[in-house]
Order: sequence, then structure tokens, then C-alpha cells
Amino acid sequence: MVKQDKPKVVIAGGGLVGALNACFFAQRGWNVEVYEARNDIRRMAHVGGRSINLALSRRGMAALEAVGLKNYIVERGVEMHARLVHDIDGKTTHRQPYGQPGEHIVSINRRHLNEALITAAERHPNICFYFRHKTIKTSQQKKEDGAKSSNYRGTVSLTVQSADMILACDGAHSAVRRSLMSRPMFQYSQTYIEHGYVELNVRPTKDDQFALESNVFHLWPRGNFTLIALANTDRTFTVTLFAPFELFRKELNTDTNLWQFFQHYFPDVTILLGKEEIISAFHHSDGSRREALPLVSIKCEPHVFESNRVLLMGDAAHAMVPFYGQGMNSGFEDCLVLTQSLETRCADLHSIVDLSMYNYNELKDLVNKTDYKLRKRFDLFLNKYFPTKWIPLYSMVTFTRIPYSQVIALRQWQDSLIRKCLWVFASSAVISATVLYTYIGKREIFHQYFSWFIKYFN
Amino acid sequence: MVKQDKPKVVIAGGGLVGALNACFFAQRGWNVEVYEARNDIRRMAHVGGRSINLALSRRGMAALEAVGLKNYIVERGVEMHARLVHDIDGKTTHRQPYGQPGEHIVSINRRHLNEALITAAERHPNICFYFRHKTIKTSQQKKEDGAKSSNYRGTVSLTVQSADMILACDGAHSAVRRSLMSRPMFQYSQTYIEHGYVELNVRPTKDDQFALESNVFHLWPRGNFTLIALANTDRTFTVTLFAPFELFRKELNTDTNLWQFFQHYFPDVTILLGKEEIISAFHHSDGSRREALPLVSIKCEPHVFESNRVLLMGDAAHAMVPFYGQGMNSGFEDCLVLTQSLETRCADLHSIVDLSMYNYNELKDLVNKTDYKLRKRFDLFLNKYFPTKWIPLYSMVTFTRIPYSQVIALRQWQDSLIRKCLWVFASSAVISATVLYTYIGKREIFHQYFSWFIKYFN
Repeated sequence: MVKQDKPKVVIAGGGLVGALNACFFAQRGWNVEVYEARNDIRRMAHVGGRSINLALSRRGMAALEAVGLKNYIVERGVEMHARLVHDIDGKTTHRQPYGQPGEHIVSINRRHLNEALITAAERHPNICFYFRHKTIKTSQQKKEDGAKSSNYRGTVSLTVQSADMILACDGAHSAVRRSLMSRPMFQYSQTYIEHGYVELNVRPTKDDQFALESNVFHLWPRGNFTLIALANTDRTFTVTLFAPFELFRKELNTDTNLWQFFQHYFPDVTILLGKEEIISAFHHSDGSRREALPLVSIKCEPHVFESNRVLLMGDAAHAMVPFYGQGMNSGFEDCLVLTQSLETRCADLHSIVDLSMYNYNELKDLVNKTDYKLRKRFDLFLNKYFPTKWIPLYSMVTFTRIPYSQVIALRQWQDSLIRKCLWVFASSAVISATVLYTYIGKREIFHQYFSWFIKYFN
Repeated sequence: MVKQDKPKVVIAGGGLVGALNACFFAQRGWNVEVYEARNDIRRMAHVGGRSINLALSRRGMAALEAVGLKNYIVERGVEMHARLVHDIDGKTTHRQPYGQPGEHIVSINRRHLNEALITAAERHPNICFYFRHKTIKTSQQKKEDGAKSSNYRGTVSLTVQSADMILACDGAHSAVRRSLMSRPMFQYSQTYIEHGYVELNVRPTKDDQFALESNVFHLWPRGNFTLIALANTDRTFTVTLFAPFELFRKELNTDTNLWQFFQHYFPDVTILLGKEEIISAFHHSDGSRREALPLVSIKCEPHVFESNRVLLMGDAAHAMVPFYGQGMNSGFEDCLVLTQSLETRCADLHSIVDLSMYNYNELKDLVNKTDYKLRKRFDLFLNKYFPTKWIPLYSMVTFTRIPYSQVIALRQWQDSLIRKCLWVFASSAVISATVLYTYIGKREIFHQYFSWFIKYFN
């Protein structure tokens, strides 16, 4: 299924960032292998864990656009144009637009987005998703039992020999990153904040409409804790309570306290949630008390290892608390930046291949030509007086780090500028020759001028 | 070899902290298993890696004393009473005493110390060292193939079922800690500083004496980099250069630069080191350039997991840069604090066992006695006016968290105080009775007094 002649990328993790990377690399024609520890999300009855909806903004959209999925995804989301702040009285609200008119973010269902990305990636023939396969190790050394081994539980040992590139998109608790922890100079920190979260759900009204205004981000700020609500396309709202763990433990420890707390601080949304929903959100299905989920902030440096062949991306590189709505967006931008830098490099390398061919021509022939010598002298003359504005071709290639593709563009700009100058000069000369011919009658001089210019500029 | 009826501790790592913990737990009669990834250090020709000598100070000594090794170790070290700061001129020095006269630290050979600790631990019958066994995982779940499995390379999978207590003393790159990284609320950071180090060696003089003053810590501070030297018992000095990696890369990149650098900044010690030693310290035995070694600072929280049954200790819990000389000392103090808290708990539990027995006596008999009732009333009376100074026995046990052993001590203090007060009262009474008898002649009153007091206070 996977041909071995093309470059190969192994992606650890088939979540949002892993699946988007798969789209990018499949699109580039690489052979792609994705290892995802969970089942295929498209075949799962229930997806536990992470938050249900996400706010897609410009950076994430740009990345989706590059794989042709932006419109499909945005159309299946709910636009949010402003924050709507709810007062404690349950009546007053304040509207805070997000930006200029037209600037908005989009509430997206995580599961739907993940499914769309996997399906889009799988349209390419050169891609393989391995679900229920957990990546367990990345090591510089080739393992004795082969570069890749998979036991009955579907664990995959990766080494740098497994592929031309390994992308660790395996989330905040990245196994790949963990295997790199003892690399010298690998700076790392993970910080859990003292606040946790619990998710709840507001159902549609009886006539199947949104129970709250849909095109805003709802916010109930209460000093040390806060409630937010984002609309879903099924007309439900996902409501999240962020509060200190201590508050969860000490004040929200009984059903009565819980109900009174919601009634007191969030009266308007509490009516919509209902007592049953609130109580059940704080309990597991077996009736035991549900702990609030923790929020972690992760920083590390570098994000690249093994001569840029192993990359940490998304939450594996930079997990963040959700309060800017940039976790997914920054992860998606990672994919875009990577693919753009590979593309740029590719264009650059095509350029130097062409330039090398041109330079052979120069070396074997042009250096003897008068035109070439004049141009060379002219280039060096201008370079002397405009050392940063006018750099000769050979110097740009050899004595600067200007990207190769830009070198060609700059040379073309130089050529066109010279041509324009020469045309101005030539036109003035033609005009003056015509004047000479008409008024003074020295035909011979005119003929000489004209034929010389025609020759030179063709 | 190891009996299964006693509590069992598994120690990951047989370095300094692991081996000291082994001594403590073997001494307490626990069954001890130590897994060390390297060979037995006592059988190794050369020990690579970590710094050769260490400064033992009060905290480390206290821990060694508790396992009876302090004198043995300190006698085999070199006392350091002051810092001796060397000026750039190669002549002037400034002496900075470490503390009051008599307060000093001791330069100790790491290898010798590690060997002594392992040998001391092995004297106990209830201990087993497994060398070349690397601890690879600690997980809450029992592994399907048994609690402990060891393959041909000697890796050991630990679970919390493996032992009553697991001590992770497996160093800055602790595998046990790595397996705990994704625990919720586990705060962690590792920070490599921009400076690295290279170790050199000053040989004894031709007549086998110390080439520098031996009982001081030598220091050549030079602003952005520094050189230190600690004496060894074999009359050599271990010299360490700490400097920015950039300086190593850019200024110490050739043998010539290296030699000039040392001659310029550390002229006095450079003569003692010699060009050959300096050059060879910066090269591997195969002639390739040796990189400066990195320095890492690690903080994490908590240090205990699985209901206090898995503990991170030493560098596994708190690796630090060496500039306070407290890496080993704090690790050793960890062992002391742990054993003391276990001992305290043990003494506490013995106390409550005894107190419970006493309280049975109280319940079945004493409560009917007038003495008891009087004392109870007196205790409650005092407690009312001195609620924190005078707490009745039952209240201390039941309504406070005063350690049980302290409860007994406080009760004994109360008893002795009451006895003293009563003696004062009794003495005054005797004196007054004597006065009554002598001067007033009321013999009967005196007899009554006297016999009552004799009865009461015996």
C-alpha cells in the first residue's frame, strides 16, 4: 500500500494536529503513517476526555484553508462575533465585540473536526492510519529487534530510522516527548493551575431552537471562578465551569450545595441547565463523585530533535490553558508553518539547481563575452555604492544567506531595472537622433544610432 | 535470601542516595531490594560521568552518622575550612572562612563514598543489590505479565504492588519520575543553564605533597566563568572549569586558544596543571573534542505518590546546579528525614498502643475512683482557662493532632507539675501543722493532717 521510494513521515497521534499534518504531507505526496492510540474516532460511540467544542480563529482557518477544508469546517460551526457577559442578577448582559465588524471566531465540534480531517487525509492513496497503536519510544539508537516493533497491544517503538521525518502530535502527555526528556539542554516545564473544570450541557428549547443567543461567546465571570458557554450546531450549548479545586472540594461537595451555588451565581443559565443536568455533570455514571479536570501549561525547548527529523507539534510541544482559545489554533498553525517552510525550502532548492545550470553556461562561455563583462563591471560598480541594495548574482548566491528563490527574483528585478533605464536612455537617444536628422539633416549619424539600438535591445 | 514476612522496600538506583537509603532500611529490618542500572561500582575499572569529589556538610554528615558511617567517611576526606580566592595576577589570594572556627566542610571522593555505602548496606542479611538492572516503569496498574519482569538486559518493571514502599533514587533522569509525568497536578520543570563544566586534575608535587594548600576550597572567579579546586586524599586536586557553552565553543575551540586562556586567567594553577593535562581534559581518548558537560536544575511537586508508597528522593526529586555543594547533602538529608518520620510514626504508634491499654483500665475501673474524678475535674478546669497550655489526656488523643508520643510526654509533664504543686502545698501544710502542734498543742489535728498526706502522696 505504501511505496518506499517516496519520503516517509511517521505521525504519532491522530488527533486534530496529527490528522491535519497527515493531510499536509499526503498532499505533498509523502508516504504517511499515522499511529493513534485510541480507536478510530469515526467508529466510537462516545468520545471521553477533552472539551467538546473549540473556537476556531484565523490561524487555524489559514491551516484548514491550505488543505481545502476551511469552508467545509466553518460552514459546520457556529460564528461567534462577541462576548456576552452575564451579570449575577440573571438579567443584565454586556456585549464586547471581538474585533472589527466581520471579525469573528467559530465554535467547532472537536469530534466532527477530527473526523473530517482523518477522512480528508485518507482520500490520498499514500497514507495509512494505524488505530489502537500507541507510540512508545523514540530513541537515537536502532532497537535490536528492528526499527519498528509492534506487540499484541499495538505499541510501536519508533526510532529516527523509522522514517525521514517523525512528527510527535501525541498531545500534552506526549510519549515521544517523554522519551526525549533526558536530552542535554532540553528545557521543560509543566505547570498545573489550581483551577479545574467541569462540562455541562444546555439542551435546545422545546421548539428545537437555541436556548441562548447563539452567535456569541457567553461568559459569567464571578471573580475567582467563571462559567462559559459555546453554541453547537445541534442547537445545544457546551457550558464549562472553571473554578479552584478547593471550591469544588469544599463548597460544591454535596448536591444541595451545588444546586444553591448555581442558582446563586448563574441564575439565568441554571434555569436552562436544570438540577438534573447539574448534578449529573458532577457524577460518574456509576454514581461516584466526578473530580474537576485539571488544566496544564507546558513549555519546552527545542521543539526539534535529530537534525530537524523529529518534531514536537501541537500540545506535545506547547499545551496551554484554554483561556485564549489558541490551543488548537496554534497547533494548526504549527502544521502550516512546517509545510510552508518545507515548500519554501523546496522552491529554494529548485532555484539553486537552475542557477547552477546557468552558472555552468556562464563558466564555459559567457565570461568571454563583452556584454557579460560590462554587466559584471556595472554590477560591481553599483554594489560598491549600494552594498545592500544592489548585490551581483554570484555574490547573492555565495556571500549571503538570501533564500535561493529570492536570489532569482532579485536578479530578475535587477535585469528589468537595467532594461527600463536603458529604454529611457535609448528613447532619449532616438528622440535626439530624430531631432538631429530632421533639423540638421545628418542622416548618416541617425542610421548608425538607430541600427545600434535595435541590435542592442533585441 | 529475602524473607517475605517483613515489610519490603524496593530502591531504584544504587548511587549515593539509593545506597544510603538501603543502609537505613536494612538497619530498620526491612527487606531491601536495590536495582542499579550500572555495574557494581566496586568492580569497575573506571567510573565515568559525574563529578569526582563532593563537599560533605552538616546535613550529609548527620545522615551518615545515623547509619554509623560518619567517622569512617570523614576520616577519609579532606577538611576545607575556608574559600581561598585566587586573583588574576597568579599571586594574590584572599581567605574567606566558611563559618566560625571549627565549622568546615569535607571534600569526599564520590566513588569511595558510594562503595562504602554499598558495603555497609550489604552487611545486613535482609538486603539484595541487583546490578545492571534498570528500573523502567512504575505504574498504578499491575502489569499483565506479573508485577515484576526482567528481560535479558536486566530491566525491571516496577508497580506499586512490587513492594510496601518504592524509593526512586535513580538520579536527575529518573525513569520512575518519568513514568509519573502524566499524573494530574504533577508540577515539573527542568532547566539547563547556559554554562557547562570540564574537569581537570592537579597531580601531587614530586615529593608527593599537595601542590596547593589542601584544607581550603580554591576559587578563581573571573566574572562570567570560574575555576574551582577541591583536594583529594591521594594529594591530587580535582579542578573544574565552569563557563558559558558559548565560551567553550567560540574561545576554547583550539588547543592554542585553550592554553592561552588558562595562562591568562588562571596563571598559578595553569603551571600546576600543565599544557598536556589541559589539552587532554578537552579531548576524548579517541582524540575528538570533548563537549563541556551540562548542568540541570529540576523541581517537581509532589515528591510522594500512591498514598506515600512511592517516593522521589535525591536528584530524582530535586537536581540542582552544584554551586552550593548541597546536591548530595540534601539527598542524604532526604534519607534521614524519611527514616526519622518513619521512626517518629513508629514511636507514635507504640504510644497509642500503650495509651489504649491504659484507657481500658480507665474505662473498666478508674472512672469510679474519687482521685480520677477529681483529676478529671481539675484538668477540665485548667483547660477552660488555658485551652492550649493544659489539655486533658483524652482531649489530646481525641481532639488534637498532637503526635501520640508527645501526648504521653505532655501527660507526664502535667503529672509532675501537679505533683510539685501538691508537694509545695503539702509542705506548707506540714509546716503549718507543725506550728500548730508546737505552739498550740493540738496533737490530734497534726496526726490527721500527717497521715492523710502520707497516704495521698505515696
